[in-house]
Formats: sequence, structure tokens, C-alpha cells
Amino acid sequence: MSKKIKVLVWNEFIHEQKLDVVKEIYPQGMHQTIADGLASLDETGELEIATATLQEPEHGLTESRLAETDVLFWWGHCAHGDVQDEIVDRVQQRVLEGMGLVVLHSGHFSKVFKRLLGTSCALKWREAGERERLWVTNPGHPIAQGLGPCIELENTEMYGEPFGIPEPEEQVFISWFEGGEVFRSGCCWRRGSGKIFYFRPGHETYPIYHNKDVQQVLFNACKWAYNPCSWKGVSEAPNVSIENTLEKIQAKSGGIHEEGQEGFR
Amino acid sequence: MSKKIKVLVWNEFIHEQKLDVVKEIYPQGMHQTIADGLASLDETGELEIATATLQEPEHGLTESRLAETDVLFWWGHCAHGDVQDEIVDRVQQRVLEGMGLVVLHSGHFSKVFKRLLGTSCALKWREAGERERLWVTNPGHPIAQGLGPCIELENTEMYGEPFGIPEPEEQVFISWFEGGEVFRSGCCWRRGSGKIFYFRPGHETYPIYHNKDVQQVLFNACKWAYNPCSWKGVSEAPNVSIENTLEKIQAKSGGIHEEGQEGFR
Amino acid sequence: MSKKIKVLVWNEFIHEQKLDVVKEIYPQGMHQTIADGLASLDETGELEIATATLQEPEHGLTESRLAETDVLFWWGHCAHGDVQDEIVDRVQQRVLEGMGLVVLHSGHFSKVFKRLLGTSCALKWREAGERERLWVTNPGHPIAQGLGPCIELENTEMYGEPFGIPEPEEQVFISWFEGGEVFRSGCCWRRGSGKIFYFRPGHETYPIYHNKDVQQVLFNACKWAYNPCSWKGVSEAPNVSIENTLEKIQAKSGGIHEEGQEGFR
Amino acid sequence: MSKKIKVLVWNEFIHEQKLDVVKEIYPQGMHQTIADGLASLDETGELEIATATLQEPEHGLTESRLAETDVLFWWGHCAHGDVQDEIVDRVQQRVLEGMGLVVLHSGHFSKVFKRLLGTSCALKWREAGERERLWVTNPGHPIAQGLGPCIELENTEMYGEPFGIPEPEEQVFISWFEGGEVFRSGCCWRRGSGKIFYFRPGHETYPIYHNKDVQQVLFNACKWAYNPCSWKGVSEAPNVSIENTLEKIQAKSGGIHEEGQEGFR
Repeated sequence: MSKKIKVLVWNEFIHEQKLDVVKEIYPQGMHQTIADGLASLDETGELEIATATLQEPEHGLTESRLAETDVLFWWGHCAHGDVQDEIVDRVQQRVLEGMGLVVLHSGHFSKVFKRLLGTSCALKWREAGERERLWVTNPGHPIAQGLGPCIELENTEMYGEPFGIPEPEEQVFISWFEGGEVFRSGCCWRRGSGKIFYFRPGHETYPIYHNKDVQQVLFNACKWAYNPCSWKGVSEAPNVSIENTLEKIQAKSGGIHEEGQEGFR
Repeated sequence: MSKKIKVLVWNEFIHEQKLDVVKEIYPQGMHQTIADGLASLDETGELEIATATLQEPEHGLTESRLAETDVLFWWGHCAHGDVQDEIVDRVQQRVLEGMGLVVLHSGHFSKVFKRLLGTSCALKWREAGERERLWVTNPGHPIAQGLGPCIELENTEMYGEPFGIPEPEEQVFISWFEGGEVFRSGCCWRRGSGKIFYFRPGHETYPIYHNKDVQQVLFNACKWAYNPCSWKGVSEAPNVSIENTLEKIQAKSGGIHEEGQEGFR
Repeated sequence: MSKKIKVLVWNEFIHEQKLDVVKEIYPQGMHQTIADGLASLDETGELEIATATLQEPEHGLTESRLAETDVLFWWGHCAHGDVQDEIVDRVQQRVLEGMGLVVLHSGHFSKVFKRLLGTSCALKWREAGERERLWVTNPGHPIAQGLGPCIELENTEMYGEPFGIPEPEEQVFISWFEGGEVFRSGCCWRRGSGKIFYFRPGHETYPIYHNKDVQQVLFNACKWAYNPCSWKGVSEAPNVSIENTLEKIQAKSGGIHEEGQEGFR
Repeated sequence: MSKKIKVLVWNEFIHEQKLDVVKEIYPQGMHQTIADGLASLDETGELEIATATLQEPEHGLTESRLAETDVLFWWGHCAHGDVQDEIVDRVQQRVLEGMGLVVLHSGHFSKVFKRLLGTSCALKWREAGERERLWVTNPGHPIAQGLGPCIELENTEMYGEPFGIPEPEEQVFISWFEGGEVFRSGCCWRRGSGKIFYFRPGHETYPIYHNKDVQQVLFNACKWAYNPCSWKGVSEAPNVSIENTLEKIQAKSGGIHEEGQEGFR
């Protein structure tokens, strides 16, 4: 019996409660629709899926819960600023240790995503319900499995280049928009031992996460982002004592630190 | 007459004032030695070099000063925590816009470096005054110009792998240490339109920045990191109005935002 | 007086002689139009521009000519197979040593490009004279200087994803096509000490290289691809004799090779 | 029951038959020792392991055999030149389609590796039976699982930088050598849908492939390089007819090709 992948779908869960147009599409919240989509494709029971929202204590992202999460999905939009910095630190730390992270749509401006990428993560946008076509740029990529040459979405918000990100390490999708723009819609990075996937389509006024192809991408991304390995001391900066050095050496000159003292941070 | 490259060498400037061993090697501070080294190699007057320290108002990094800086050198060690977050924001913003950044030695743990890379930036270390050899991994790289196959430093602090960084986009140096470790000592990244170079050798108890090869690397790095171009609105997220869209489209469905409203952050 | 950048524009120069529609647009060959475009933007005389074609002895790419070339432009389409493998070897070797290479449009299937990238370099295509918009994905990139947010070409051949290339190290342009496709139209790689830029727009039945924005890109690419440094022994595999080893060691066991013998290839 | 990973270990198998020192260490050939090492770690029967050698018809790499191979190991040294170009074409094609490739030691100069990377793949070397230490640069990487901070090999051939490769996409190991050099010993790239891992330790006069840590790396690499997905038409360049274009367009001008004609190569 191989270990299940523990998935946690996080959502700020605000517009679904405040705006009728959103509530209608996602009556139980986008997190539930996303979780249901993942479950519907999980024929062999590889995933163990849970959800969490901003409103829960510690945003539902306690130390212990994150410690046992393998892949975290992130959906946020109007409440990025309400996410506590301490929780952002935690999520970052877990990604560096090896937890997978899938950031969705407006999550490009989440604290978590900006923290891990270090760039502006800015872009152009337009709400016109226009057509989008996400072209697969690498048909043999695990995240593109089960798809045709492109995903077509009849109504979406437009996101346009330039997208303020570090160069993607693997490009999986690039979008074409009816209004004339393009966008790097499916991008992979690794940070520490964690894998990060950004997936553009949105937003909350369209039934994006009910779309079968989108669900397939999220399911694929979940399996791609899962790293069974981890890097536990990723943030430690240990002093190697001269006695324990692999090649025998003699200290030739004094330093700043006393033996056993911690380094500066 | 071509434009000069405006270089600013920043130093926390603490150990040189507090520790005799450091003061002796760098009586006017490491920033001054670095600046002098750059000047000594600038035969054709390409650079305009200045310095700044932590103790100055706004750490010597005012909006206007950063605005006119092309390449910033960063040296910090025991006072990373004293650098104000607001100044870190500013430096990050300027790098994304196109300012070059050269981070030195213990600067791996500076807020600025960690912010831009998004990772732990952790490493192993040992103060034994041991021998280091920095091997050039790409002899035709601009940062390696004027060097032999390796730089040899008789006494250095050791930094060892694993180094908690995103995969370098260009590797220029890898270090060998007498005690048996290795380290990625010269690494390049681009973030936004800014170029970042990390250079390992240190630390303050050794005359590293008096070494001719090290000075050559810093001079080369300065010219490499300089981007004559810039990306002014790198952090802006403009709404493209339906009227101004390049391909004529009709709004098919309403969105969340009213016309002209700013997006969420 | 700083050294001029020696540019060589290479063209197979066939369709301009065989097809009236092409001859009309490029009466002296595309190489000449490209060279003229570069010259028109070279206000300070930085470039020294020459041309070469397939029909010349050794395709105009003799050892000595390549040795003094800093940046090579490559245009080929129907005669990729006629380029001699020996000349491909030469061009590859020079790129690895540090020569810049700018590959244009249908050059994606040239032997030179496929050799250096190692992949299929395949793509989808359509000749309908449709509209293309090349979006700048990094506005502060040197190759994007002097351009607006996008380049618009009223009539082009379409190239569509998936494009069979290694992940670009720097993405400068992504194209939108009227017919619904997208394409990574401006891509950068480094191989050895050489910089490679691929630029998509074409093809020979449209006046692409008369377009001011396109000429600006080619001029920018020329300066970007120029590496003043070089890696002379990039293909050498020297044996380090035990006597000349930097750290004194003793041979502990015999090997396969006799002292001074060359390695296997 | 999940699909087994089909592994093929290829060896030129010459020095084991010609040189006593090698025959003694690898009496049945290195391919057999490598295959046995993989099998010994495959506790749950994930792998289906076979071997092939240069001497077999088509080097044991027929179309049908490659077609069903998921991961290919490559060991060659003195007979790189004897591998037929047609077989190299085949292996390249399969890698682009998604087959994993693990290249060992002197395979850095194999036609297959040079073809896929496009660079010189040159390096420095020395046969002194010296000590090597391979440091793990990413402890949470799947290829580093089950290892300590470094692998220590008491006797190896030295390979030194500069190593003429494209920048690794993932660095897993960097070597320290007793004689003073360093080397990028564990490097990952993706080409098409195939994953490539280069692993340095060697050579045939040392019992490298009997080492438990080395066997662990090869086992890990095998699982990492396996891509259950594939890109079948990776080398096809289909014409999209105007009638079948996703957005309805009208041909605005004629091209070079007649409807349905193939593109140039």
C-alpha cells in the first residue's frame, strides 16, 4: 500500500459569501469545487484531500497541519493583505522543505507567491468574459496529460504580459486571448526541495473550476508537485567544527566566532 | 561620451569599528577598500563610484540615491536585522526595475538577498583560515575575464553546500576547500530587469578585498550587472479597458470590478 | 576607440532569386535588407557589417572569416540540407568559443540551430498572411529596447506551439496570432561562451525585415549577443599530470592511459 | 498493478574484455554490475531491467527495443566513434519523446550526450586513484534520497572544471577532489519530454559501480528519469490548414507552399 498524497486546498473564501454571482457558481466555496474535482479524477485513491480557509484559526494552516501536507493549493484575491506574515513564513518554510504548492489565478499577488518568487508578480488584466485558449507547450509534460493541444475557455478574465516572474523553469501552458494578449499561464519552479506550479485561469465569476480540462490540470499538478523526499534542515546554517572536518586541517588564524557559537543572521 | 556606470558600495560597517583584527585590514571600512579596488581597475573612467553605510540616514539608501544607482554592492554580516524593511522594499524594487546587485560573502543572509531569491540562503561554515580555490566554470564569461583557471586564496572562511538558493542561471565559480567541502561561489540570476551576482569569498578577518583577482571579479561583476535598460512599471498591474483593447471585443459578462477600479493586492 | 562589433549576415539566398514575390520585396536578398537595417540604426558606428551566402565557397564561412566574426545572423529555409556538415561544425565551435548567433524565422530547422539546441526544433505553421502581435515579456531586456508593449505585424506566416526547444533561458517575446495560436518568438540561450537569440517573424513573402520594429530588435540582438570575451580551448580535454596538480598527491593506482596520452573521444 | 519501468543498461563492453584490471572488477561487464545493483535495490519490483552492448546487431538498440524502453543507461569510453549515427538519431528521438537517459562518467563524450546537449562536453582529467567527495547540493532531491551529506569514493579518476555543458537545470552533486579540483558531478536537463541525468564517478579501473551509494544514486536516477507521459509527434511540423484554424480567418496573401504541401527541412 503506497502512501497517499495529502492535499490541502486553501481558499480565502470571501467573494463566494459576499457576491451573489460567485455564490451561485460556487455555493460551497471554490475550495470545495476544487477538492471535488480532484476527488472525481482520483480513481485509484492516491489522494487524501482536505480544505482550509482564511477564517479558521491560523487560517487553517497550523504548524501540525502544514507539517503533514504534501501539496497545498492556494486561492486568494481580495484578502491577500489579511494573511498573517507568520503564516506566510510557515508556508514558505514548508515549501523549501519539499511541500508542493499550486497557486491559482489571482494568487499571483498572494504574499506566499511573492515571497517565494521574489519578484513583483504583476500583470495586466481585463474583465470582459472573453475567450481564452491555453496552448500546451510541452505535450509530454506530466501536467499536460490527458489534454488535447489546447484548453479552450469561452469566458475568462484576461491576464496579459509582461508577467513579473523569474524565468519559469518549465513552461507548460501559454494563453491566447480574444482581445489580443498572451500570457504564461502554466509555469513551474523549484524552490528548495519544493515544486511550485502557477495556473492562471480564473476568475470567480466564471465556472472555471467546473471545467473538466481545468480539473485534469489540477489533478496532474497535484501529482507533479508532490515530492516524496524532503530537506529537513533547509534553513539551518551549521558550524562545522575543525575537529570534525573531513580532511584534517589546522586552524591557521582566528575568526570572529567562538567555538560552538551560532552564525549571524 | 558614453554614460558612466554609477556604482554604490554599501557596507554595514560595524566589525571594522569594533574588532581590531578587522580594523587593521580595513582601516577605512571594507566599502572603501572595495571602492578603491574598483577604481584602480577603471582605466578608462567607466565607473562613478560612491559608498554608503548602515549608519547614515535611511542607511544611505534614499529613494533619490537608489534611483540614480546602476549597480549596488552589498556587504552585511552581524547587522542584517538592523536593515529596515522599508529600505529592503526599495532595493528590491530598484533591482526589479533594472539596477544590478552584487552580494558579497555573508550577504547571503541579508534581507535583500533573501527577499529577491525567496529561499533560505543557508549554508555550512567554518572559520579556520583554510585554503580556497575558486574554479572558473565558464572561462568566456564576462565575470571571469582576466583570470586564470582558478583564484587561490590562502586563508578564508569556509562556506559549504548545500547552499539554499534557486538554481543559478549562470554558474561562474565553484569553490574547493582544504577541509574537504565545495560551494557554488559565483552565481548569477535575473529578477525583473535586474541582474544579481553573488560572490562568496570572505570574511572580514582576511584581506580578501585587497586580493587582485577578487578585485578583478568585482570590477567585472560591476560591468556585467549593469543594465542600461529599465522596466519602469515593473510593479504596476494596469487594467486594460475594453475600449482600448487591441482586438475589438464585446464584454460578454460582468465582472467584480467597476470600470477603472484598481485590482486587489 | 572601442573595438567594433563584427557582424556577418548569412543567407541561403535562394527564394529571392527564384520567386518573383520574394525578389520584389528583397531585390538584393534578405541579407542585404537586414544589413541595411542594422546600419541604419548604428548611429555611433558600433558595428562593422558584412554578408555571406550559401553560394560562396565554403558558404562564405571560412575558418578565418568566422574567426573574426563577433555575431552571425542566420537565414535559411529551403536549403538547410545543402549546408555542409563541416561548416556546421565550424559555426558550432565558434559559438561555443563566444561568437553570438541570431537565428531568424525558418532558421529554426537549420542544421546549426538544431545542432546547438539538441532538440527537434519543430513547430506548427500556416501561411495565411494573418496578423501577429509579439508581446514583450521583459520590458527592461536589452533586446526589447526602443519598443512599445508589442510589435504588430499585419501579415505574417503563423508558427504555433508546441515549439521543440530546450526551455529558453530568457524569454523576450511571445506571439499572438489572429488564427488563435501562440508562439515563443524571442528566446535566448547560452551555449559555451556564446549567446544565441531566436527571432520568429517571417517569412520571405512579407516585408518583415523592412519593418522598423523588427530592425530595432535585430540591432538590439546584435549588441546583446556580442560577447567581448571568449573561451578558446572550449573543446579541449587536457590531462592534468600528477606532477602539476595543485594539491600535492601521490598516484594510488594505475589507470588506462600512459602518462601524456590523450583521452578517448 | 502499476506498470513497471523498463530499464536498459547499455555498455560498449570493451575494456572489460581487453584489460585484465577491468575484467577483474567487472567480470561480466559493467552493464551487468549496474543492472545487478539496480535489481538489488528494487525491493518492490518496480523495474524490469535488461542490458545491451555495442557488439549486438544495431548495438542492441533496435527501433522496437528503444520504443519499449523507459530509461536508458549509457556507458561508453574508448569506442564512442564506433556508435553508428543512425543509432544516435534513434536514441535522440526517443529521449525527445520522453525516454529517460542516464549518462555515466566517460559517456560525457558519447555522441548521444553531445547530440542532446549541443556543447563540447569537454573537461579536464587525471588518473591518480585519488579521493573524491560528491556533495549533495539539494538534500530533498529524489536523486539524493537515502544518502548522507556526501558520497566518499577513496579511489577515482578526476574530472575537473570547466565542464562544457549547458547550465544544468537541476544540480544534485558537486565533487571535491583530493588534488584540488571541483566538478559538477550530478546534473539534470530536460530535452523534449525526456529527462537526462549525468553522473560522473568512474572509471573502469575502480569498483565504482559496486559502491552502495553509487548504486543508490543510479536506482534513484532511474525512477527520477522515468516519464510516464510521452510526446509522440515531437519532430513533426504540421501545416494547419486555413479551414481548420480555431479562429476563423481569411487568407490575406499567398505563400510559397501549395495547400497540403510539406514544409522545408
